[in-house]
Amino acid sequence: MDLVVWLYYHELDIRRTGVASPDRDIYFSSKGHDVPGLYAVLYSLGIVDESRFLKLRRYGGLDGHPDVGVAGIEANSGSLGMGISKAKGIAWAKRFLGRRGRVVVLLGDGELQEGQIYEGLQTAAHQNIKLTAIIDHNKVQSDKPVDEITRLGDLNAKLSAFGWKVARTDGHDFASISAAFRDVADHEGPSVIIADTIKGRGVSFMEHPEALRSNHGKYRWHAGAPDDASYTAAYAEIRERIDARLLTIGTGTIESHDALEDGSLVSTLAGDVALGEDGVAPRLTSVAEYTAQGYGDALIELADECPELVVLDGDLAIDCRVRRFEELLPARFIEDGISEQDMVSMAGGLARHGLIPVVNSFASFLTSRANEQIYNNATERTKIIYACHYAGLIPAGPGKSHQSIRDVSLLAALPNMIVIQPASSREARLALRWAVLESRDNCALRLVIGPSPRTIDTPATFKFELGRGYTVLEGSDHVLFAYGPVMLNEALLAAERLAARGISLRVVNCPWLNRTDVRWLDESIANVGKIFVVEDHAPIGALGDQLRRSLGRREIRVFGVEGFPACGNPAEALKVHGLDGASLAARIEEDVRT
Amino acid sequence: MDLVVWLYYHELDIRRTGVASPDRDIYFSSKGHDVPGLYAVLYSLGIVDESRFLKLRRYGGLDGHPDVGVAGIEANSGSLGMGISKAKGIAWAKRFLGRRGRVVVLLGDGELQEGQIYEGLQTAAHQNIKLTAIIDHNKVQSDKPVDEITRLGDLNAKLSAFGWKVARTDGHDFASISAAFRDVADHEGPSVIIADTIKGRGVSFMEHPEALRSNHGKYRWHAGAPDDASYTAAYAEIRERIDARLLTIGTGTIESHDALEDGSLVSTLAGDVALGEDGVAPRLTSVAEYTAQGYGDALIELADECPELVVLDGDLAIDCRVRRFEELLPARFIEDGISEQDMVSMAGGLARHGLIPVVNSFASFLTSRANEQIYNNATERTKIIYACHYAGLIPAGPGKSHQSIRDVSLLAALPNMIVIQPASSREARLALRWAVLESRDNCALRLVIGPSPRTIDTPATFKFELGRGYTVLEGSDHVLFAYGPVMLNEALLAAERLAARGISLRVVNCPWLNRTDVRWLDESIANVGKIFVVEDHAPIGALGDQLRRSLGRREIRVFGVEGFPACGNPAEALKVHGLDGASLAARIEEDVRT
Repeated sequence: MDLVVWLYYHELDIRRTGVASPDRDIYFSSKGHDVPGLYAVLYSLGIVDESRFLKLRRYGGLDGHPDVGVAGIEANSGSLGMGISKAKGIAWAKRFLGRRGRVVVLLGDGELQEGQIYEGLQTAAHQNIKLTAIIDHNKVQSDKPVDEITRLGDLNAKLSAFGWKVARTDGHDFASISAAFRDVADHEGPSVIIADTIKGRGVSFMEHPEALRSNHGKYRWHAGAPDDASYTAAYAEIRERIDARLLTIGTGTIESHDALEDGSLVSTLAGDVALGEDGVAPRLTSVAEYTAQGYGDALIELADECPELVVLDGDLAIDCRVRRFEELLPARFIEDGISEQDMVSMAGGLARHGLIPVVNSFASFLTSRANEQIYNNATERTKIIYACHYAGLIPAGPGKSHQSIRDVSLLAALPNMIVIQPASSREARLALRWAVLESRDNCALRLVIGPSPRTIDTPATFKFELGRGYTVLEGSDHVLFAYGPVMLNEALLAAERLAARGISLRVVNCPWLNRTDVRWLDESIANVGKIFVVEDHAPIGALGDQLRRSLGRREIRVFGVEGFPACGNPAEALKVHGLDGASLAARIEEDVRT
Repeated sequence: MDLVVWLYYHELDIRRTGVASPDRDIYFSSKGHDVPGLYAVLYSLGIVDESRFLKLRRYGGLDGHPDVGVAGIEANSGSLGMGISKAKGIAWAKRFLGRRGRVVVLLGDGELQEGQIYEGLQTAAHQNIKLTAIIDHNKVQSDKPVDEITRLGDLNAKLSAFGWKVARTDGHDFASISAAFRDVADHEGPSVIIADTIKGRGVSFMEHPEALRSNHGKYRWHAGAPDDASYTAAYAEIRERIDARLLTIGTGTIESHDALEDGSLVSTLAGDVALGEDGVAPRLTSVAEYTAQGYGDALIELADECPELVVLDGDLAIDCRVRRFEELLPARFIEDGISEQDMVSMAGGLARHGLIPVVNSFASFLTSRANEQIYNNATERTKIIYACHYAGLIPAGPGKSHQSIRDVSLLAALPNMIVIQPASSREARLALRWAVLESRDNCALRLVIGPSPRTIDTPATFKFELGRGYTVLEGSDHVLFAYGPVMLNEALLAAERLAARGISLRVVNCPWLNRTDVRWLDESIANVGKIFVVEDHAPIGALGDQLRRSLGRREIRVFGVEGFPACGNPAEALKVHGLDGASLAARIEEDVRT
């Protein structure tokens, strides 16, 4: 925050040029999760208006990660490591087009584990491109110190070795920051300012040295909103300090109004109850069942049965439900930091020598950033399990860098990769057991990260067999295929609505996204009229296409996430894409009545 | 070669343990294009047998890039940058399993432009993994000096800054190599030996200092086979030196036999005539028409019309037909080295500031390694053109790291990406003009790298309109859709065969792989029986799926590249996959007769 405030109020020319001039200075953050801080600065400058500012992570509000559709946002980010490269492109374009304006990009220190950073460091130096990177060097990643995840070593030496001019500053001291900028101002090529910062600066119990001390070395304030008590305490602390300062300079204390009163600011965390379409009734009720938890528990259970099983993580151990494995079986756990390509190729080496690696990251990062490495491993015909967390549209608050709606399409053409999405905690366990103990091929498990909106009851008789799912709700008129807890819930809501309208919809859970047992499929579609599929994915490249390949001349209508995934709370995002139960019911009814 | 000979004959224990022992030493090269040298060493040790050794890049012989299916090959490589990560996995597995054996991986110096290298450097140091990397530091990339593409700077300083133990050696001097290995032998963590080498060492006119001098600073011996005269001269030079040496130590001169006599070693370069299925008749006759040339020419033509157009290259300027653009318009050409992710994100920055970047690399690398960067750019709703060279199955000699049969599936789910494959030089020009001047969306142009087996005659009346192709050959019984010069040629060959069997096959060229004009499609399939598609791609995720999405209840049979793409000459690879004209004809006939 201190760096961004300094940039917008002192260092850069944006207040004069505005954010639309081709000659403006450019600032953006490569680690887009810090964008709420930037929004606050843009709001303070009148660039972002209040109504939008107060709708963080809501549809029509401000995206959870930066989007250039918001005034003042210069680059989309969210997945790490792209910042220097993008800044380099912007600076090159300015030079080529004869435009004025500086280019400044903020990086995280954990982000320096991404290889693309070093591509950018190297090419920017060679191409002698004038830009300034700032490293927000707070020494803490998502919940552990950088030095515990992957040490960066002597940063000055490293960055100098790449041919960049290096300056260093206290990232909270304006005089020091100013001096650092003066230091690099006249340098003709790329320069970097290492800003030593404190994560959580300004709130005593959130400042990382204290926060780590008080919580067994884990930092707990990286993501998510603080609970009410912490929020109140933090707010009081900050306000008191500001007021004390204002008194010394002779102005009154700050005024505030409570935006919460208008009811528009309900929390939209994944686990929370979201509003229904009428704005009142809870719809996606958390049942405290997490698909991914079944996966995490099964990993530990399998460790005994399968001594070859090892687990890799890319600094998302809690989100990926592997922290307990890490603690119980540290010798079989590899923390590889924010280096997805390295993690995947390392798994390739492990598998070649007889181990069964289970690789963990978010689906959007793992299947796209490391796609070529996954392919290369597959060509060696070993077996690796890719646990693709945070698959699908929901939660929709973080926005399109994190929502994963292309991952099935990115893997399905691999000849020896089986893509599976379990619909419940119990199914996740079955899926992982199958992948580890029975499958001869690579497996990708798509796992929803949030709580299941309802527990999908897997029949006690259901065996996890290649290409076979099961009927979740009997119905006689038409059939709707779905997978995963989010879309099965919507499918069931749609069926309930349609039943009231006299249409009997069969709902079938098909966890196998690129393998189909045609006999089972024939049974599933027996004696019904039309066939529908709802995807927790783009309409291209997932279950709908797979069923079309399997079915021949039966027409299939697919409802998928069209366009880029919307940012908002679950109900908003589902509705925007026409994938909530009510919309699905209406779309199906319209289809079958015409 | 000197390094590899030293490793297998002195440094490593492989001659004693064999290549199957779990305790063996491991060596592989991360830059897999050097594998012919390794094959020679493995042959000399009796690990690879002569009949296979003499079939380089032929089906059933030795792959153009390493494949673990060949005895003695420890890792698949070919796309650059994965070596340290894979070596790290192997070393970790050995430690975990209590197995003996060292791990040595060879890297190129150009390869040090790949970001994954730095992920591996950083994590290997943090994880304190004992392995040795050797950098074959010959200072030349595909045809230019590393210092001209992207300077590496002070390598010792850079590698030391990453926490690796660094040694340096003359890569052609065994005593010096031996000393370097002794130097790093006792180091507990990762170590790297920078081996200063001469590219083309041992043949006077191929050694890079001389080769660069004599060819205007360009190195011409990196890829492909030398012409007969150069081969003869090089062979004579090497043989003379060996014989002279043998005489001084008192043995006789070397004996050789001419393996060419048995006729099995016809050249299999892309541009050459390959043998037909009967082993005699030329089938894929080069017509000296290159689709990609139409693209390269059109780029220069468009530069005048579109001042915003800029071209980016990832060290493949000749292969991607952009060298002439580079020479004519250096201010609008960005050489970004072997840093695909950086190149793509840089293009994102350029596009955000009003330029139209045309990004060039091989389809297999560009669409998979930089997939997340392409997605990120797409979310900014700018327009970027991705020229995906070497798309499809042919040439099949380099093997599956280079053959690109997944690229359409990797892009098709992007909502604002149009994937197009032109079938001729003329169509490539039309496609690029459309992409630059008319399209509002991003475009990916799939371009075949080799010569067209026949020139597909684009009708003079054909307009390049979204989703519309044209009929290449009229036919009344059934229809076969194809795209690109390779598969259209096979489709036409199939139609010729089927005509002789009384089946009239319509052949339709559909260059639009993820957009379809349904009216045009309806016309194309009017009055025929069955619908077939032949893909220059896996059967999943390309034109077949697109037509199924568009067509509804008509059944479509798709012939695609099943499994991993075969290595061989064009005729072999097509036949192995059942995609040559004769096989297609047989498959279609069988289908329509049952």
